[in-house]
Amino acid sequence: MREDRFVPPSGAFTRSVPIRFSHCDPAGIVYFPHYFDMFNGLIEDWYGQELGYDYAELITRGRYGFPFVHIECDFKIPSRIGEVIDLTLLIDDLGRSSLAIAIICHRDNIVRLRARMVTAMMSLETKKAVPIPDGLREAIESYRQRTAAGAG
Amino acid sequence: MREDRFVPPSGAFTRSVPIRFSHCDPAGIVYFPHYFDMFNGLIEDWYGQELGYDYAELITRGRYGFPFVHIECDFKIPSRIGEVIDLTLLIDDLGRSSLAIAIICHRDNIVRLRARMVTAMMSLETKKAVPIPDGLREAIESYRQRTAAGAG
Amino acid sequence: MREDRFVPPSGAFTRSVPIRFSHCDPAGIVYFPHYFDMFNGLIEDWYGQELGYDYAELITRGRYGFPFVHIECDFKIPSRIGEVIDLTLLIDDLGRSSLAIAIICHRDNIVRLRARMVTAMMSLETKKAVPIPDGLREAIESYRQRTAAGAG
Amino acid sequence: MREDRFVPPSGAFTRSVPIRFSHCDPAGIVYFPHYFDMFNGLIEDWYGQELGYDYAELITRGRYGFPFVHIECDFKIPSRIGEVIDLTLLIDDLGRSSLAIAIICHRDNIVRLRARMVTAMMSLETKKAVPIPDGLREAIESYRQRTAAGAG
Repeated sequence: MREDRFVPPSGAFTRSVPIRFSHCDPAGIVYFPHYFDMFNGLIEDWYGQELGYDYAELITRGRYGFPFVHIECDFKIPSRIGEVIDLTLLIDDLGRSSLAIAIICHRDNIVRLRARMVTAMMSLETKKAVPIPDGLREAIESYRQRTAAGAG
Repeated sequence: MREDRFVPPSGAFTRSVPIRFSHCDPAGIVYFPHYFDMFNGLIEDWYGQELGYDYAELITRGRYGFPFVHIECDFKIPSRIGEVIDLTLLIDDLGRSSLAIAIICHRDNIVRLRARMVTAMMSLETKKAVPIPDGLREAIESYRQRTAAGAG
Repeated sequence: MREDRFVPPSGAFTRSVPIRFSHCDPAGIVYFPHYFDMFNGLIEDWYGQELGYDYAELITRGRYGFPFVHIECDFKIPSRIGEVIDLTLLIDDLGRSSLAIAIICHRDNIVRLRARMVTAMMSLETKKAVPIPDGLREAIESYRQRTAAGAG
Repeated sequence: MREDRFVPPSGAFTRSVPIRFSHCDPAGIVYFPHYFDMFNGLIEDWYGQELGYDYAELITRGRYGFPFVHIECDFKIPSRIGEVIDLTLLIDDLGRSSLAIAIICHRDNIVRLRARMVTAMMSLETKKAVPIPDGLREAIESYRQRTAAGAG
């Protein structure tokens, strides 16, 4: 399999995650559902640290939910206890109430896995999809434009 | 270390749990926080199947919470992928709003681990401890008496 | 959104899973990585109970691994604490060393989510893909044929 | 209940943990097994960042295991999504092959929970307890002495 290289575009939101004992299975590699938990944490941090929207407040005060409607993921190289991997978040698509996020997990510029996660913004009160509020939309759109080089 | 033997008293609530790949760590044994998750599942099943109180309804309709206030656990023998272990629930103590549960994890009558978990019944509305409702108390007390032989 | 109906084909491997307190998030619905953990458990049970191959032994004695190389999942209806959902496993595709599994999560014949999970059989010794052994291949192919009606 | 105050002794190993969506249950507070996972992560970081022993290498190259033999935990104040809690690690007792660690979870100098976790060092080859190697013992003893004020 040809190596899949990735260099995060300038300004992309990237966080490092140490692979812990607790992430790993009897084969010594990350048990895959833990990746999705890492991705959810990355998205939380991106809302707060990059967009300036506190994720917990969006849920508890704003009464918004962000359920995933579609997820796909290609696993290329397993990760082992003691390694540190980088997770980069990019925007694939921004709809009226939906947001498609690309997450690239990489180390030394080689891709370990790539995920595409589509989330819909909903009201926890009505349980229905709602348009992404203007301020948040602008923050996401701005992030998308300044990191667009690497989103392809 | 001397073997710790255990035969569940007649009528005790016991459930078998298969040790799955996902429970196990790089050393091939159960990663310990998973035991606490198994114990919580056992308690849920005990409420519904033994006491006749649907755990989900106690929370969602009754607006009760059951936070743990104290947990202690002795780990004696590790468990490995592919094994099936038995979890038995007994009552250690029943207070006004608190309940001390003993959970014995065993296989072939040999104890693998013993836990004592003290939970307090609280109102999710007031966030304060509340007395255990009479009907539930009677069901717990009845269970305690008919399984008392093995609780010591 | 139009309802997505599903009736498992005769002979399909289906297991019920109670949605527990521990599966659910502050919005009261299943936190999505738990679904993938349920799917992995379903696959383990299918190996042992349907194909007659003990999953733990394949790993510990056979020194085989079954890493996922691709996963995709459509989430249609959320599941809540106290519900019981059914998970059905069908075969999408069987390659030389790869196996594409479809998992349909449903209740009352209405689909809650659909996943496609592609796994590759590998040697834990060489860390390379290996052909699926003949006996196992025949068991999978036989299962595929007798459940093919509903796999489409 | 009287407030339980805690000020970490000078030099104590403390790490902050953000309470994430994924940590929380339908009551909006941390589902308790996640605390034990946080504690395990804290201990890993303490080995690497404070003692200078890479935890992953101790396991994968040193073939040491660190199973817990006893855990006890008092839960005093629940933690909610969006909060940041501090975890401080202190030494309670250092035996020939056993190590008793105290973990205090606190915020604004008020204790949220206190745990005592006793681990035994073992060989993954022989599955038997082994003496803690001299260099590691000295590093632990040194940490204990310089943080002893607050360990009581």
